[in-house]
Amino acid sequence: MQRSVPQTFDRVLSSMCTDPHPAARAAAERFLATNPGDPATYEEVAELEADAVETLGKITGLADPHGYITSGGTEANVQAVRAARNRSRDRVSDPNIVAPESAHFSFNKAADVLDVELRLVPTDETHRADVDAVRAAVDDETVLVVGVAGTTEFGRVDPIPELAAIAHDAGAFCHVDAAWGGFLLPFTDHAWNFAHAPVDSLTIDPHKCGQACIPAGGLLFRDRNGLDSLAVETPYLESTSQATLTGTRSGAGVASAAAALDELWPDGYRHEYDRVSDLASWFAGELRTRGFDVVDPELPLVAADVSESTFQALRDHEWRISRTDSDLLRVVCMPHVTRDTLSAFLADLDAVR
Amino acid sequence: MQRSVPQTFDRVLSSMCTDPHPAARAAAERFLATNPGDPATYEEVAELEADAVETLGKITGLADPHGYITSGGTEANVQAVRAARNRSRDRVSDPNIVAPESAHFSFNKAADVLDVELRLVPTDETHRADVDAVRAAVDDETVLVVGVAGTTEFGRVDPIPELAAIAHDAGAFCHVDAAWGGFLLPFTDHAWNFAHAPVDSLTIDPHKCGQACIPAGGLLFRDRNGLDSLAVETPYLESTSQATLTGTRSGAGVASAAAALDELWPDGYRHEYDRVSDLASWFAGELRTRGFDVVDPELPLVAADVSESTFQALRDHEWRISRTDSDLLRVVCMPHVTRDTLSAFLADLDAVR
Repeated sequence: MQRSVPQTFDRVLSSMCTDPHPAARAAAERFLATNPGDPATYEEVAELEADAVETLGKITGLADPHGYITSGGTEANVQAVRAARNRSRDRVSDPNIVAPESAHFSFNKAADVLDVELRLVPTDETHRADVDAVRAAVDDETVLVVGVAGTTEFGRVDPIPELAAIAHDAGAFCHVDAAWGGFLLPFTDHAWNFAHAPVDSLTIDPHKCGQACIPAGGLLFRDRNGLDSLAVETPYLESTSQATLTGTRSGAGVASAAAALDELWPDGYRHEYDRVSDLASWFAGELRTRGFDVVDPELPLVAADVSESTFQALRDHEWRISRTDSDLLRVVCMPHVTRDTLSAFLADLDAVR
Repeated sequence: MQRSVPQTFDRVLSSMCTDPHPAARAAAERFLATNPGDPATYEEVAELEADAVETLGKITGLADPHGYITSGGTEANVQAVRAARNRSRDRVSDPNIVAPESAHFSFNKAADVLDVELRLVPTDETHRADVDAVRAAVDDETVLVVGVAGTTEFGRVDPIPELAAIAHDAGAFCHVDAAWGGFLLPFTDHAWNFAHAPVDSLTIDPHKCGQACIPAGGLLFRDRNGLDSLAVETPYLESTSQATLTGTRSGAGVASAAAALDELWPDGYRHEYDRVSDLASWFAGELRTRGFDVVDPELPLVAADVSESTFQALRDHEWRISRTDSDLLRVVCMPHVTRDTLSAFLADLDAVR
């Protein structure tokens, strides 16, 4: 069943996934026929998963991480909400979670799946969670407060220490969604992880800036109880319980995460952070020079106000771009995005506007 | 990061996953860096998914299938329960689902995740759902009745038409879990799918007997409403809503499913069914000859009563085997299991008992 050329990333500007690192790809191919969901049968990939979790702990300031490589950021976020809900069952009958409106739509999905109320609160003028609004939305039935470290629309980092304090004052847990930001933030001064605040759980996705293959998200808990609250008994696998949301899992994803982390943490990721930071700054400047309103990037995500017709014309030129909720053009400077990519984009932008 | 030899399947006898078909593996590698969760960006793999769903519809007697390639059977089952729950929200305040105790533990997981009550009812002496017990367990708050087409422990097929009738009499939906059986049953006389009964949803996993790569499960709905009841709005992808449980998804899994189905349906799967049927019959006979109590296989899954010490000794000989809930040895005749494999197993069995 021959098809045309495989997917290239030349014109993909709005995806938070990327071309995997060669070491990650090789590991994925090697472990393609393995299932970490059955660790007693597939021992080698189970060890790789433990290695990957250990390193994710290092990246996120947690010496003794409890977690696993998920199918992606959605599973990680859903499971974090599920753990908070399950751990609060004695205390709370009608659970709610509080998140900034900038939170990824996986929290909407989590709310439907898990039958909890999602309270979205406005962001402030810096596109960050409004701490007072969060505090006002939290009550006795709140089980989780969510902060985002690298938002989907603007690449912003919420005030994580303040959010964690609000959560704990109310007897709730605090989850940080660093799905995209987790591999960038270690090289900044932001307060975002387990070492910076009493964060209870965190999402960090190797298959985003970690340069692993899909599917490889990451979920970490500070306490073993977090993971245990997800466990369901398994009567016929060689192990006795399973905390993951899926059953059979992709050894390719897990092995690629271990390989990418082994290869790139910390120097490779640091080098990449420097590259995309400079690139985003340059690109934002180029857009401003052309008269566009640009949201000043803090992390390598550039949002700019581009007319509907210009946007559609760029799409007609095969650029894979998407808009934010506020209708801004959104360009994510992932590992596959180069100066040449963006120069070509700017040339097309000049031609169509 | 060099490791020892990659996973072989030589001694894996209790897994319902297998070595993928070469065409599936090639497709997985080709589409490793694609995300069907963003179909407007990754158009080619989105088309492959539509092809795969179309073929799964053919296999399961559904001319106009609504569904998708899931992360696995667990997601398919969880989503089937979620759809039934969501579609019953107007009618039912405290939802329950009814399943035979032979149902896969993913229904236990679904019950916890989705906050619904799971009513497990005993199987009868043939290891099938006891229809009277199911009928007794169903009430006004039942949203789903589950039948299994190829049970995990004994490879049995539940009386699907009777279960569907009970479900609909109570205003509930009927789901068939054919995760493993779906690629075997077309070559038998069993009544198990959309053409044989008014089944509402069905699980069938390409990464089990379909010979695709992990992750590739399958979920099909008879009605569009089933899939729509799962949809969550997506503000920033180029598409507008997402029905899947995960977000970013594995293009490798989807492409491998399409490739395997294209290559093997129907003749390759028929040929394989004939092979493993004969193999299971022969193996069951060999075990009986040696004096073991063997549950007569209907599908290619052989369960036999082996002592604890014999079981452990076989494990010590590196056989990856597991037991059923009733402590029986369980051998699943998957594509990688050959006469040579089982002859070697029998030789070790003779040596250790």
